[in-house]
Amino acid sequence: MEPMRLRELAVQLDAELIGDGEVVITGAAGLEHAGAGDITFVARPALAGRLAGSPAAAVIVGPHQAPDRPALRVADPYRAFASLLARLATPLDRLFPPGVHPTAVVDRGAALGDGVSVGPHAVVGPGCRLGDRVRLGAHVVLEADVAIGESSVLYPHVVVRERCRLGQRVVLHPGCVIGADGFGYLPGPAGLEKIPQIGIVVVEDDVELGAGTCVDRATTGATVIGAGTKLDNLVQVGHNVRIGRHSVFSAQTGISGSCEIGDGVSMGGQVGLADHIKVGDGVKVGAKSGLHKDVPDGGVVFGYPALDAAESMRIAAALRRLPDLVRKVAQLERALASRPPEKEA
Amino acid sequence: MEPMRLRELAVQLDAELIGDGEVVITGAAGLEHAGAGDITFVARPALAGRLAGSPAAAVIVGPHQAPDRPALRVADPYRAFASLLARLATPLDRLFPPGVHPTAVVDRGAALGDGVSVGPHAVVGPGCRLGDRVRLGAHVVLEADVAIGESSVLYPHVVVRERCRLGQRVVLHPGCVIGADGFGYLPGPAGLEKIPQIGIVVVEDDVELGAGTCVDRATTGATVIGAGTKLDNLVQVGHNVRIGRHSVFSAQTGISGSCEIGDGVSMGGQVGLADHIKVGDGVKVGAKSGLHKDVPDGGVVFGYPALDAAESMRIAAALRRLPDLVRKVAQLERALASRPPEKEA
Amino acid sequence: MEPMRLRELAVQLDAELIGDGEVVITGAAGLEHAGAGDITFVARPALAGRLAGSPAAAVIVGPHQAPDRPALRVADPYRAFASLLARLATPLDRLFPPGVHPTAVVDRGAALGDGVSVGPHAVVGPGCRLGDRVRLGAHVVLEADVAIGESSVLYPHVVVRERCRLGQRVVLHPGCVIGADGFGYLPGPAGLEKIPQIGIVVVEDDVELGAGTCVDRATTGATVIGAGTKLDNLVQVGHNVRIGRHSVFSAQTGISGSCEIGDGVSMGGQVGLADHIKVGDGVKVGAKSGLHKDVPDGGVVFGYPALDAAESMRIAAALRRLPDLVRKVAQLERALASRPPEKEA
Repeated sequence: MEPMRLRELAVQLDAELIGDGEVVITGAAGLEHAGAGDITFVARPALAGRLAGSPAAAVIVGPHQAPDRPALRVADPYRAFASLLARLATPLDRLFPPGVHPTAVVDRGAALGDGVSVGPHAVVGPGCRLGDRVRLGAHVVLEADVAIGESSVLYPHVVVRERCRLGQRVVLHPGCVIGADGFGYLPGPAGLEKIPQIGIVVVEDDVELGAGTCVDRATTGATVIGAGTKLDNLVQVGHNVRIGRHSVFSAQTGISGSCEIGDGVSMGGQVGLADHIKVGDGVKVGAKSGLHKDVPDGGVVFGYPALDAAESMRIAAALRRLPDLVRKVAQLERALASRPPEKEA
Repeated sequence: MEPMRLRELAVQLDAELIGDGEVVITGAAGLEHAGAGDITFVARPALAGRLAGSPAAAVIVGPHQAPDRPALRVADPYRAFASLLARLATPLDRLFPPGVHPTAVVDRGAALGDGVSVGPHAVVGPGCRLGDRVRLGAHVVLEADVAIGESSVLYPHVVVRERCRLGQRVVLHPGCVIGADGFGYLPGPAGLEKIPQIGIVVVEDDVELGAGTCVDRATTGATVIGAGTKLDNLVQVGHNVRIGRHSVFSAQTGISGSCEIGDGVSMGGQVGLADHIKVGDGVKVGAKSGLHKDVPDGGVVFGYPALDAAESMRIAAALRRLPDLVRKVAQLERALASRPPEKEA
Repeated sequence: MEPMRLRELAVQLDAELIGDGEVVITGAAGLEHAGAGDITFVARPALAGRLAGSPAAAVIVGPHQAPDRPALRVADPYRAFASLLARLATPLDRLFPPGVHPTAVVDRGAALGDGVSVGPHAVVGPGCRLGDRVRLGAHVVLEADVAIGESSVLYPHVVVRERCRLGQRVVLHPGCVIGADGFGYLPGPAGLEKIPQIGIVVVEDDVELGAGTCVDRATTGATVIGAGTKLDNLVQVGHNVRIGRHSVFSAQTGISGSCEIGDGVSMGGQVGLADHIKVGDGVKVGAKSGLHKDVPDGGVVFGYPALDAAESMRIAAALRRLPDLVRKVAQLERALASRPPEKEA
């Protein structure tokens, strides 16, 4: 970042200045990585103890913290820090210069909005419609008749297959694949016969999908990723799946075909769902869980096979006593054998 | 689809017409997604109850079903529906126009069959041989000396490394990587030393590999995917693996090096196999299982570590009683302590 | 390979010739794949029995083996075989011809060392710096200000985002993505708000990363992959992770954000780590394990949730007796009910 005095930053972040406003800030970093010229932040008072050892020049704190160095006080330190990061991020215009790169292949039948950026070697098929300020990185491929809403960003090497639709402000990271064929076959006399996958994928507004994440097109109708939902890297979403709004799945999670996931669902990494599972609103699924049945609204599940999380934790704790239990039961059996039943006494 | 009367569709699908043949069909969709103008299908009589609430205009049924609306009767409703979907699918010629796109880079030493399609920015290396009607999507990269059989389809962003061989009618989805180096190192004085991977990958006829799926080249010889086998998205196949014919693996499954998998094997998603495992013909592996030893022909296994599925189910059921069992054993110990052995009595 | 007499090969590999040096060798292959003209190797005396049935023309053996056919004797047969494979591998110059391909897009502000190869349609952004003999395959995309050390090799379709840094002799396999945004959001009034990810990725010398593997950029600071570390295909490394030197992770393993992994750590495939976990030097993690807490130096862990491997094995063994244990405890309860306590006697 451009070096800046703490008092200038206070104005930009609408923060209360505490201590020396003339301190020069040259960067921003989390508590663990902050160096001598950096401004850092303490998200919760409980973490304030870690600040003492940091060489950071300044700190963003919340209402009830007494900082040990020049500081900015705000209502929500993490949010203020995030807004600072946004100012420091590489501008999208450097990564995606406006205009169509001369090496891009844009079909004459495609319609591009104002301020669209099409990167080197990108391919835009016939019938595509790109909203204003859509940005396509190098090597992005849009097959025929893809529609993308305003201000969406597709990083290099994204592929969107024919007829799929992306909403506004969608972000797709490198290598993301939208609309590959769903995985469906029928047994036939000469082997498996493919069930054609003629549906599409609909990615609603404000969705973000990670690097290498794959969302398959529906057999008929649409696979849907609801507005505001965020999927991490290398996630698999099968055909005909419907994911609700504002849900969050960590990396390498896999959702089998025809699952229906609610709003505000969070899943850890490497979770797997069998096909046709229904997961209600607000459900939380622990990392690496394997679900083979429905979960009602608000459920918290964990394990393989997944159970209610509290039960799963009790089982995990009891498991550590299992080898001992095997021994104890054998002892009990021997002990009891030495005590004949009452009637024989 | 082009609107069409039900009686016309009956002729095309060689089906018996039941009821009003003048009904106009404007689309096709599964039971859950069918709208007012759609034709849908009921795969099994057990599902017929779900039809009642559907707005579908018509339905494809099997021999022993009495439909509640205009219908087509066939021997196998799902297969007839699939054949209808095939008529409705986007023609491959729209996705892969015949000919070599002017931006493609095709080495002079490559040999292309009749009717080959090479998409924008695709790269075909020296010594490659493409059979008739092979279709390469945008940005496909074939390294030197790759051979591809007739009518195979490589979607955008597929990479096939040098000397690998694909059979006829192979389908590779976007981002699939064939022939990357196997993962092999030897400990050396300065760290791990790479074992060069000079083998290849052989993908036999009618194989379909999903988006982002990776099949590594062999150290020597070949990694082989047998004819008719279908792998879903983000599957990993290590070096020197041999997979038989007509096997089916779901998404995110991983097969470690030198495994030998039989014919007609099915694996759920996120399954993992340790290296050098032998899996017999017709084996079924439940989702998320972890196999560390061989499975004989016809085996059905599940769990982590994987066991015979019936045993694994019994254990999973018993696990829910484990916390209770811990308590009971403690009670038994206390109770027995209050009953001295016979000889002390 | 070019046909060669065994005595010539003995000279090249600095090996002791045993038996007929005039045998013509036409290829090299592991014991299981070796054909009639091949030379193979026996890594350990325990495997010598398998040699008998092999049609191999010759064999590389260790000090204390008595071969049944013409042979080369060396101190370390596997290493000698690997060095033979290196001679047989396709030369990098055939895969990556020196020079910049005319279809590549190299920004004028990029600096290229001597002997650099830039493949067809590759994109090198402004401010990039490539060391001598760096090789970029077809369709590689380097965003702005990427730095790559000498002799590194990026296979086709690799993406490296802005400002990330690769060391010397780094190898990235097809579809590898370096520097995509880390997965971080804050809850906001209208849904999740993105935390900008302005850090970078640092990949140190001699690192090799597999096909489809994703390493996310840090929120601030750097995600670091230590020198000599090797990650297999489809591995996920979250933001702010630090992996030490000479560690090895198998395919589809996932490391959540801010984990710190030591030197010489080995992980099997499909392992998952929760965020902020610390894993010490020399730790071994069994395949498919799920770690949710720290592991000290030298730890050997396994399972989900992961425990000390020996304990995990005992539990796995005891689990097979669990259904039986449930029955036994029920029997014990019945038996004890028929034996009233002492005081009642």
